[in-house]
Amino acid sequence: MKPFVDFFQKMTVPSDSKIVMLILDGLGGLPLMPGGKTELETARTPNMDALAARSELGLTIPVGPGITPGSGPGHLAMFGYDPIQYEIGRGALEALGVDFELGSEDIAARGNFCTVDQNGILVDRRAGRLPTQESQKLVDLLRTIKIEGVEIIIEPVKEHRFVFILRSHGIGADITDMDPLRVGLAPLEAKAVSPDSLKTARIVNQFVQDAKQLLAPQPVANMILLRGFDRLPKVPKFFDLYKLNAAAIAVNGMYRGVARLVGMDILPVDGLSIGDEFSALEKFWSQYDYFYLHYKKTDTCGEIGDFPGKVAAIEEFDAQLPRLMALNPDVIMIGGDHSSPAVMKSHSWHPVPLLLYSRYARSNGISMFGETICRSGSLGIISAQHVMPLALAHAGGVAKFGA
Amino acid sequence: MKPFVDFFQKMTVPSDSKIVMLILDGLGGLPLMPGGKTELETARTPNMDALAARSELGLTIPVGPGITPGSGPGHLAMFGYDPIQYEIGRGALEALGVDFELGSEDIAARGNFCTVDQNGILVDRRAGRLPTQESQKLVDLLRTIKIEGVEIIIEPVKEHRFVFILRSHGIGADITDMDPLRVGLAPLEAKAVSPDSLKTARIVNQFVQDAKQLLAPQPVANMILLRGFDRLPKVPKFFDLYKLNAAAIAVNGMYRGVARLVGMDILPVDGLSIGDEFSALEKFWSQYDYFYLHYKKTDTCGEIGDFPGKVAAIEEFDAQLPRLMALNPDVIMIGGDHSSPAVMKSHSWHPVPLLLYSRYARSNGISMFGETICRSGSLGIISAQHVMPLALAHAGGVAKFGA
Repeated sequence: MKPFVDFFQKMTVPSDSKIVMLILDGLGGLPLMPGGKTELETARTPNMDALAARSELGLTIPVGPGITPGSGPGHLAMFGYDPIQYEIGRGALEALGVDFELGSEDIAARGNFCTVDQNGILVDRRAGRLPTQESQKLVDLLRTIKIEGVEIIIEPVKEHRFVFILRSHGIGADITDMDPLRVGLAPLEAKAVSPDSLKTARIVNQFVQDAKQLLAPQPVANMILLRGFDRLPKVPKFFDLYKLNAAAIAVNGMYRGVARLVGMDILPVDGLSIGDEFSALEKFWSQYDYFYLHYKKTDTCGEIGDFPGKVAAIEEFDAQLPRLMALNPDVIMIGGDHSSPAVMKSHSWHPVPLLLYSRYARSNGISMFGETICRSGSLGIISAQHVMPLALAHAGGVAKFGA
Repeated sequence: MKPFVDFFQKMTVPSDSKIVMLILDGLGGLPLMPGGKTELETARTPNMDALAARSELGLTIPVGPGITPGSGPGHLAMFGYDPIQYEIGRGALEALGVDFELGSEDIAARGNFCTVDQNGILVDRRAGRLPTQESQKLVDLLRTIKIEGVEIIIEPVKEHRFVFILRSHGIGADITDMDPLRVGLAPLEAKAVSPDSLKTARIVNQFVQDAKQLLAPQPVANMILLRGFDRLPKVPKFFDLYKLNAAAIAVNGMYRGVARLVGMDILPVDGLSIGDEFSALEKFWSQYDYFYLHYKKTDTCGEIGDFPGKVAAIEEFDAQLPRLMALNPDVIMIGGDHSSPAVMKSHSWHPVPLLLYSRYARSNGISMFGETICRSGSLGIISAQHVMPLALAHAGGVAKFGA
């Protein structure tokens, strides 16, 4: 059976509508006590409530039953892509996370400084969680390594971590990890798993040897480990799927990276607040058909178990909504990439509230937005991958099928 | 597209949780009058009601829209297997039904005694529904037949029925039935449908010839018919799928057989009552991560059209629930393998009420368990195959997908 998206792509047509997808990261939640109110239900959200009365409500399943997604797969699904088919590997994710513009041919890996003894045996896989500032200096050292025929790029991450990027053409990314995953062993050599990756393995091993020599005088961070080599998955472009000129508004690298992966333009945001993000929306309003706007604070609070903080973050978001309404968009989605219940202090598999506004919404007239009311909404419990097709239909962007 | 279960299997991790799946056979029902209460809604179930207030509720579709399953497919789905992909044939089902430990290479068929006239023409396909006691004597007679190179096992069932098992290696099970399905015709010869089944057909035809000679002096049961030759499907093991050490508590052979098929340990039960089954649960509590407990009486009453009997059976089950709660399990599922509405006197396709308790349940706080309240529960109407993935997520047994 062909995936639905292959059929859907043939049905999409350009339209004059403005579509906005607002993603509150980790929006879905749980009550503090059985039968109580979730974070979203606790928050005073007069603007979202008013919009809900004119919208279709539902719950989205990000990846599948029981699957707790990271933000990468959660976003891909909300953009209409099957996150299992288009899996983003660990190296590529790390590169997206630091806002690096990973090319489609680039091979990325997660790197970290580590400590080995005089016999080359691993004694600390994280080099004592080297402070970020010191790590940056060592990254500059690694940047001096040159290997003929390829470009090697190193980007610092946090503490002992960095991203290793190999920019070349026609070579494979199928090489094994160097991290033995426990101390007491020597770091492994990278080995090619496919013939076209033999050259890749040679380059990587050469780089590590050079790095080892350069780092030898260091008291702690005297070696490196690389793992999770991969490229970005090749995904169909957002424009080809939906005939939409799409732009992304996000202040964290990871979300900008996933939006870039599907072919959205990444808009500059002056500042880091949700107000700054809405300012970017206003500024570029006339230039795009579709805007994806990402709000991080809901997830941050959920992950540290801060129930009142998540409530306040939702209220802060709600206060901005009138600025969007003033632009008179045709279709608005308010949803999340996954749930992050404060009581769990983590992402979760629970379905995520979704609001879909358009003039053609089959709405219930009730001014309320939350997990419980969404459960009985007109959309039902749907796959997150179905949100974009529905939104596009509401925008007049889908042709009639058959006669 | 690969089945979801292939992906899910890669995501499961061991956890310390205790998971219990309580299956009330044929749980789903219908009201006696339109708009009335079903069996489950009529029953006084204070313990399940209290648990429901802290649980997620929903309805499960056993196999697919409009499909009325037998208990075999109904159970496989609740265990997370696609019952269409892993079809259990009639011969194998008959062997499971008498609690026979069918090996993965064994070929099983349904057998029955019949009556032929002096020309070998079938005059009664069931030998006058021979009493079980007489049938057992004839089974002992059949057991004297020896065929070189294979082991043949005969197990009595009920009345005129028995199971025929051919224990051998490297031979096919693709042979045709011998039952012409109506009187006035001679029993058919078994024919091989695939080359590797030629030997199988020869053995079976030889056995039937020998049986005919042995049975010739019998006044009624003077011949046999064999049909539904097959092996058990090869299913992935429960432990490999879910990383759970699983045990089954059931007093009927069929349910023990299906549990054995997926690789569960079958626990001994001292007695036949639901109380005896809960005693087994208590006794083995510390030894397993997952328990499947089967309760038959609900289905038995449904199939004979005994509405008050089914209500009473549900109440009898409910009275045992505190014994489970005292063990403090992490995840509890209460559901059914299919519906058996008393008004239909049969299994049916109707979705089945499901309760899923865990500390992370998105619950509604309402003390009620029944078809109507489940319809508006947080789980929605889901495939029975999604129940195990959800339960495992609630138990902390599924890794995060992506970052």
